[in-house]
Amino acid sequence: MAEEKIFFDNASTTRIDDRVLKEMEPYLKQQYGNPSSLHDYSEKPKKAIEEAREQAAGLVGADAEEIYFTSCGTESNNFALWGLARAYRDKGNHIISSATEHLSILKPLKELQKEGWKVSLVPVDKYGFINPEDIKKEITGKTVLVSVMHANNEVGTIQKIKEISKITREKNILLHCDGMAAAGIIPVDVSQLGTDSYSFSSQQMYGPKGAAALYVRKRVRIKPLLLGGTQEKGRRAGTENVAAIAGFGRACELAVNEMDSNIKAISKLRDNLMEGISSKIKNVKLNGHPVKRTPGNVHISFKFIEGESILLMLNLEGIAAASGSSCTSQALKSSHVLLAMGLSPTMAQGSILFSLGKYNTQKEVDRVLKVLPPIIDRLRKMSPLYKEQKKT
Amino acid sequence: MAEEKIFFDNASTTRIDDRVLKEMEPYLKQQYGNPSSLHDYSEKPKKAIEEAREQAAGLVGADAEEIYFTSCGTESNNFALWGLARAYRDKGNHIISSATEHLSILKPLKELQKEGWKVSLVPVDKYGFINPEDIKKEITGKTVLVSVMHANNEVGTIQKIKEISKITREKNILLHCDGMAAAGIIPVDVSQLGTDSYSFSSQQMYGPKGAAALYVRKRVRIKPLLLGGTQEKGRRAGTENVAAIAGFGRACELAVNEMDSNIKAISKLRDNLMEGISSKIKNVKLNGHPVKRTPGNVHISFKFIEGESILLMLNLEGIAAASGSSCTSQALKSSHVLLAMGLSPTMAQGSILFSLGKYNTQKEVDRVLKVLPPIIDRLRKMSPLYKEQKKT
Repeated sequence: MAEEKIFFDNASTTRIDDRVLKEMEPYLKQQYGNPSSLHDYSEKPKKAIEEAREQAAGLVGADAEEIYFTSCGTESNNFALWGLARAYRDKGNHIISSATEHLSILKPLKELQKEGWKVSLVPVDKYGFINPEDIKKEITGKTVLVSVMHANNEVGTIQKIKEISKITREKNILLHCDGMAAAGIIPVDVSQLGTDSYSFSSQQMYGPKGAAALYVRKRVRIKPLLLGGTQEKGRRAGTENVAAIAGFGRACELAVNEMDSNIKAISKLRDNLMEGISSKIKNVKLNGHPVKRTPGNVHISFKFIEGESILLMLNLEGIAAASGSSCTSQALKSSHVLLAMGLSPTMAQGSILFSLGKYNTQKEVDRVLKVLPPIIDRLRKMSPLYKEQKKT
Repeated sequence: MAEEKIFFDNASTTRIDDRVLKEMEPYLKQQYGNPSSLHDYSEKPKKAIEEAREQAAGLVGADAEEIYFTSCGTESNNFALWGLARAYRDKGNHIISSATEHLSILKPLKELQKEGWKVSLVPVDKYGFINPEDIKKEITGKTVLVSVMHANNEVGTIQKIKEISKITREKNILLHCDGMAAAGIIPVDVSQLGTDSYSFSSQQMYGPKGAAALYVRKRVRIKPLLLGGTQEKGRRAGTENVAAIAGFGRACELAVNEMDSNIKAISKLRDNLMEGISSKIKNVKLNGHPVKRTPGNVHISFKFIEGESILLMLNLEGIAAASGSSCTSQALKSSHVLLAMGLSPTMAQGSILFSLGKYNTQKEVDRVLKVLPPIIDRLRKMSPLYKEQKKT
C-alpha cells in the first residue's frame, strides 16, 4: 500500500482550514450579491467584508479602517511601493530596501528606477539579517521609504523591524514591511513594529488563494494601484472577492486564537527535522539563523548535489518540498536570497526548503528522516563534484 | 407567506452556476497546491489553469496563449491601458476613448494624463453609440491606442467594434475593448472584432468573483501591471487563484454551449418587461437602443422621481435592481453614461436598471410588472416635480 503523501511546502501555500471553507460557502452559493449594490442581496456580503476587516486588523494589531483588501500578496506589495512612492514623490526620490526581498518588492523597485527613483539595497549577513545601521547609513535627505520584509520566505530569518523603525521614525521616513511569511505564523503588532504599511496574505495561513491585505497606518497617504469604482474607500477598485475575503478573515481569527499552540507544535517538528537531518546526513548546512527563524522553516544546503534532483526523488516518495520561492523555482536559477547570504552558487542550488505547517505530524518528520538519507546518498554517488571531493 | 426574492441585478454580478461551483471544489479542498511548485501537488492546479485558459480562449475566439488571468475586470482594464501605454510609449502619447466607458477605463486615463498622455473622449449619440467617424477624426500621428467598450454596462448598447477596428487597423493603432458586459452574454470573436486586447470577467457569467482575463493578441507587446514572480508568462505576477480560475473557465465553456438558448430566453423576458413597463406606466423612457442592446438589459428613466427611492421600494418587495453601475451607485451621482447620452440630470437620476439573467423567469417579470406601477404612482404623488408638471 502506498504511504500517505506528505506536504512540507507550506511556505508556498497551505491547505484551507475546514472552518475557513465553511465561512466561505454562503458567498459561493446563495449570498452572491455585489457588496456595492443597493438591495438586500448586498447586505450579508457587505457585512462579511467588514467582519473580515476586523479579523484581519486583529491579527496585526491594527484598526479595521487601516486594512485594505487585495487579490494576492504580490498585489499588496506592489500597491504599497507604487502607492507610497507616488503619494510622497514631492518628498524625495530615494528608496532603501534589502537584497533578500521577495520579487514582488524587487521588481517594482526596478521599475521605479526607470521613473527616476534611486534605490539602495542593503546587504545581509550570513544568517540573512539586515544590520539596521546599514539602513541608517544609506539615508539621505531624499529618502522617502524603507521596505524590509518581516520574515524571509525562503530561509525564515526574522528581521529586527523594531530597530529599523526606530531609525525611520527618527528620520521621518516611511517604513513598509512585507509580512507574507510572518503574519499568521508569528505574532505581529504593527504598532510595536512601528511600520507604516504591512502586507499579508491569506494563502499562507490556511485561508484561500485570492485574498490578501495591506495595512496602511492612519494619516499615511497612498495612491491606489487599481483604479475604477469606489470599493475599499477608493484605494482598491474592483468588485470584492467576497468568499475569499470572508475566508481570509476567518483564517486571521483562527491564527490569532491558535498561534501559541501552532508555534509550539510546529517548532518542535522543525527542530526534530533539523536535528535529524544534521545527525543523519553529512555535509549539510542549515541556512538562516538556528533560532531566530519562523517556526516551520527548515532550509538546508546539501553539498555536491542539486536541489531539483532531491525534489524529484522526494516527490517519487510522495513528499512535497521546495527548492526556494515557488514564484521563482521554475526558473531553475540560484536563489538571490542565498547568494546574498554568501552561499556559493553550487551550494545555493543544492538547497531544499521543508516548510512545515499545522497539519504536519511527527510521523511525517520520521518518514522524511528515513527516506531522505538514502536519496542524498544515491545522488551524491552520481555526482562528479562528490567524487572529486572524495579523491582530494 | 412572503413571495420569493427576485434578482434583476445580473449586470452587477451573477449567481455561480452549480456546475461551476462543482469545478471549483477540488481546488478549495484537496487540490490546494501552488501551481508553480515542483511536486505532485502542483499538477492538477496547473492543469486546471491551462484547461481554463483553453475555455476562456474558446469563449472569445482566441488562442489559449493569448489569455492572461487577472483577479477582476478592473484589473484587466487597468492592465490593458497601463500595459499598452507603457509598452508603446515610443510610438506616441495620445489615447482615444469614449465618454461612456467604465470607471476602470476612465480613471486610469486620467492618471495617464498626469504622465504626459493626451486623452480624447469621443461623444455618443442618444442611444449611446459612438460614431466611428468621430474616432477617425481624433486620430493624430501621436495616437497609440483606442479604448472602447463592447457593450455598455449600464444601458446595454453594443458598439460597432468592427467598424472601429477597421479604422484602427488602417492607421496601425492599437484597439482595446472592454468586454465585461458582453463576453459570456453575446457572441464574441476577437479576430472578427479586430481588437488587439479584450477584457472579460467571470462574475457576470455565472462564474465566481476573483477571476477575469485579458486577451492580448500575439505579437502585441504589453507591460505587466503586477510585478513579481513568473506566473502568466511574466505578465501577471502573483499566485494564481486556482479555484476561481477553474470556475471561470467552466463558466466560459457553459456560456459558449448555452449562449443561443440563453439569448433567446433572456431577450424574451427583457422584451416582455420593457413592453410591460411602457404600457403600464406613463412618462417613462427606455434608455439605450431598442434593439441593439444586450439581451438582459432594461434601463428605464421614470420622470419626476428618483431612482434610489424606486430601488428602496422594490427592495421592500424583495426585488433587487440597480440605479446604474454598482461600482458607482453608492456615490448617488448622476450616471456619466446617461449624461453623455444627453439625459438631463433629473432624468438620469430617475433611472433604474433591471438586468435579467438565465435564472430569471416570466413569473418574476409578471410580478415586477404588478408591483412596479403602484410604486411609481406612490412616489410620483409625493414628488414636487410631478405636482408642478400636473399644474401646467
